[in-house]
Amino acid sequence: MIQNNITKEIISCSFKQLTNEKAIDKISITDIMNQTDYRRQTFYHHFNDKYDLVTWIFSWEVSELIDLISNWEQRENVLLFLLQYLEENKIYYKKIFLNIKLGSFKDYFVYYIKQEVKKITNDYLRTLTVCDITHTSVVATTDFYTYGLSEMLYRWVLEDCNPNANNYHKLLIQAIPYKFQS
Amino acid sequence: MIQNNITKEIISCSFKQLTNEKAIDKISITDIMNQTDYRRQTFYHHFNDKYDLVTWIFSWEVSELIDLISNWEQRENVLLFLLQYLEENKIYYKKIFLNIKLGSFKDYFVYYIKQEVKKITNDYLRTLTVCDITHTSVVATTDFYTYGLSEMLYRWVLEDCNPNANNYHKLLIQAIPYKFQS
Repeated sequence: MIQNNITKEIISCSFKQLTNEKAIDKISITDIMNQTDYRRQTFYHHFNDKYDLVTWIFSWEVSELIDLISNWEQRENVLLFLLQYLEENKIYYKKIFLNIKLGSFKDYFVYYIKQEVKKITNDYLRTLTVCDITHTSVVATTDFYTYGLSEMLYRWVLEDCNPNANNYHKLLIQAIPYKFQS
Repeated sequence: MIQNNITKEIISCSFKQLTNEKAIDKISITDIMNQTDYRRQTFYHHFNDKYDLVTWIFSWEVSELIDLISNWEQRENVLLFLLQYLEENKIYYKKIFLNIKLGSFKDYFVYYIKQEVKKITNDYLRTLTVCDITHTSVVATTDFYTYGLSEMLYRWVLEDCNPNANNYHKLLIQAIPYKFQS
């Protein structure tokens, strides 16, 4: 499993490097694998296609960053880490977001944000002693935060992460109401 | 101007009726105008194309509904009226939202929601005596509510407006936090 991830990381690294030089649609699997010591076929032992690779890169790199801090008290850090990650990789993610063939990556991005928002709402629900909030309402609040937040991050990347991650984080913290704040 | 709008409404009515019978891409300008007493060319005196027609229908019909109630105290009614309008026209709007060639109608829909959210934030700002909120923060809050709310309405229409408008309105009121509530 560890070896698997190392191979995946090498392939990912090659792909991300190539996105600096070429349009994403012009990058072939052969191009990606030529920069590694693996055979072309090895790509398909790990990924179905470029879309699969792109979603893996995002989920792997982000989860490595924030796995340890996903709890309610530190929820603001999850957002800050995610903003810093997107900023560090802004040229890459702008290309990914603008690529029509990878359009469904946005769905994956929204899905990912929803998982993070859900962790927060679940943490919050655990703190309740009285059932004063319905399940449907929690689902709707989760959806609202997910769609609002993911679209803001998406557009922020398209605007070259301007203002920078730290300032945008401060702005979001100030601008987004905390439904679940105790 | 009034005659202009009457002609536009007749054309709109013909188009909306045709969407019950045919796929949107199969509806020609000739089809639309054949159902009216006007010549084909009259369409182009009023609209550039089908996309132009679709956005006019939405903005005209919705503005007729809610022009009189767009103030902060009655903001919940704006949302309720919009939900009821979408529900009454749910088969039509589901087709519009799912039509790939009319994909940019979603951008218009988001733009429209933003105008409504802006009215609320502007009303709120007028009530402030101390400048305790920055302009950038208000813009970010407006964006957050716009993206969250428009995506929820969009997906609600795709799910055949289930739960119904009144119940979904109650749910949204409960689920969406009021940043600007005094």
